[in-house]
Amino acid sequence: LHPELDTPCLLVDVDRLDANLARMAALAATRQVVLRPHAKTHKSPAVAARQLAAGARGLTVATVSEAEVFAAAGFDDLFLAYPLWVTPAQGARLRALLDIVTLTIGVDSPDSARALAAQVSTQLPRDLRDRLRVLIEVDSGQHRSGVPPDDAGELAEQVRHAGLDVRGVFTFPGHSYAPDGRQSAADDEADALARAAAALTKRGIAAEVVSGGSTPSVGLAPNFDPSTGAGAMTELRPGVYVFGDAQQWELGAMQPEEIALTCLGTVVSHAGGQLVLDSGSKALGADRAPWATGHGRLLDHPGARITGLSEHHAVVQWPGGAPRPELGSRLRVVPNHVCNAVNLADRLLVVANGRIVDTWPVAARGANT
Amino acid sequence: LHPELDTPCLLVDVDRLDANLARMAALAATRQVVLRPHAKTHKSPAVAARQLAAGARGLTVATVSEAEVFAAAGFDDLFLAYPLWVTPAQGARLRALLDIVTLTIGVDSPDSARALAAQVSTQLPRDLRDRLRVLIEVDSGQHRSGVPPDDAGELAEQVRHAGLDVRGVFTFPGHSYAPDGRQSAADDEADALARAAAALTKRGIAAEVVSGGSTPSVGLAPNFDPSTGAGAMTELRPGVYVFGDAQQWELGAMQPEEIALTCLGTVVSHAGGQLVLDSGSKALGADRAPWATGHGRLLDHPGARITGLSEHHAVVQWPGGAPRPELGSRLRVVPNHVCNAVNLADRLLVVANGRIVDTWPVAARGANT
Repeated sequence: LHPELDTPCLLVDVDRLDANLARMAALAATRQVVLRPHAKTHKSPAVAARQLAAGARGLTVATVSEAEVFAAAGFDDLFLAYPLWVTPAQGARLRALLDIVTLTIGVDSPDSARALAAQVSTQLPRDLRDRLRVLIEVDSGQHRSGVPPDDAGELAEQVRHAGLDVRGVFTFPGHSYAPDGRQSAADDEADALARAAAALTKRGIAAEVVSGGSTPSVGLAPNFDPSTGAGAMTELRPGVYVFGDAQQWELGAMQPEEIALTCLGTVVSHAGGQLVLDSGSKALGADRAPWATGHGRLLDHPGARITGLSEHHAVVQWPGGAPRPELGSRLRVVPNHVCNAVNLADRLLVVANGRIVDTWPVAARGANT
Repeated sequence: LHPELDTPCLLVDVDRLDANLARMAALAATRQVVLRPHAKTHKSPAVAARQLAAGARGLTVATVSEAEVFAAAGFDDLFLAYPLWVTPAQGARLRALLDIVTLTIGVDSPDSARALAAQVSTQLPRDLRDRLRVLIEVDSGQHRSGVPPDDAGELAEQVRHAGLDVRGVFTFPGHSYAPDGRQSAADDEADALARAAAALTKRGIAAEVVSGGSTPSVGLAPNFDPSTGAGAMTELRPGVYVFGDAQQWELGAMQPEEIALTCLGTVVSHAGGQLVLDSGSKALGADRAPWATGHGRLLDHPGARITGLSEHHAVVQWPGGAPRPELGSRLRVVPNHVCNAVNLADRLLVVANGRIVDTWPVAARGANT
């Protein structure tokens, strides 16, 4: 495989990528909701452009610097799904962004809303003020950030009182990253968003946007139930679906045939009868959920497991009986968590019909602030 | 702390760094061995220059591209401590390197030695050939790469037969990264290196270089025992000691007062009574050894633990009874594994007396190939 390439390097199978984009766009269309994919997975304007072409509307980002990269690349409708604490320096950057994009920002406390208002909205020229919107972050069970659903109305009122334009609610059902946890997380999400939206309505604040979605749960969201209001999402924000990874494979959320990104590694050692690849944690990332079966998988050898991972060594347990690849062989490794693998690379090599046809810069690599 | 900085960002306490460099140089001087620190930890010519000024001789690197970065910065004596599988493309890069540096390369199989000879030494101009040297990699108990110590002599003979200049043996006692495993790993290392050196001698190949050392084990290496030959190392290659990290802290290999690198994070959420910082896995790295007490530590709050880590959220369990820092507070986070944290950053901010006094580029960030 690709003997001309220096390894480790990241390969994107563009046909699989396009199929993943089309499948998620179709799911959103069937549910009649907006698809606003999370760009933190690919950090790449080339992939974002394909997402919009395939039917997505707007992008989600995680940091101000990711917003800056995508704004500079011409994407003008961004949701920064993060409970920012806005400093004066960050306020200046957000005001510069609002000069060129519509920006929605997540809020989960009155204090952070007041900081956002003080540093941004009150200092914006009047004609730009309607470009800044806020969604209330709700905890649907991950217990990371966000308020309890029933508290969303009170917070929305406080945020509005701070002078900000509340447009609705959002959550990230991150507890869907658990074996047998996908359906219950999808149910929790639907319930939490319905209660949060109702809490806003009760205070006279319309929840125009009701936003959720993670790759493991997005296909399992319950349909709208008019009696409870559950399932009334207006927007989905999955990220990982573009490429897939070993976590999605092991959760059963994506099939190996759908995995579009791999790290090409070279067999460098047979020490101790093992197989050692040069795709270490500085290429794959060090993520390993407690339920993961290893530090990564091999796309073409589903029985193999990466049982040891250091910075430049992946020690592979090879399936019994199968012939072991020779030194110098190249194998396609599936990282456990593709978002962190992409963030380690400067570029993605685009493969079609077995040949490298393009190179996409990871323009927002390292964009953490 | 540093309200003017955008977070997360990496801070280096230069006084602590210099103390760490002096302490390791003194240890090497006491043992009368060469200190050839591993540059993969800092990836930064500015730190490497301080290491040499403090007494180190030469550098260790993990990849050809790291060698290229340090060679371009003027470091002319490099050990590439990795079992390279040399392709034609990599051979051309190694030959270009040998035009400007003395390069020692690790080998753990006859096939990889033959590839190295075919792609590099046989194609080098005659006057450059003595710049390429080889060390035989020995497995001292980590079971990653390297041959069993007693097989080092046979491999050394095969490598010499391939036309390469064997100068000795090396190992990495990576199994020192275990609670209560530091001393036994240091003992294993001493034993393995002594046996490997003896195996070379028996075949008439002088083991001029006997190289080992990891940060957790380096201070515990047994003294030279003339009856067994154990402890006769000539060279130490620790890497992490420059900065320290939560792993060294929890292994007892470094004290918190010695930790020179932290990731500055901002408190962004108090959701659910928790403390959430913006220093997630894209800033800290996702490393978590099975024995680690969390995903990272707080330098100034030793009772706190990062109990949940996602890309831009670090959920902190705060010690009972202690007042919880306010939203917007800045805290110094100690990554579990500093090598992977540094590799996520473009620059290190250098702090002296509480002020930022310099910025060091992480010149070899992402240099994986």
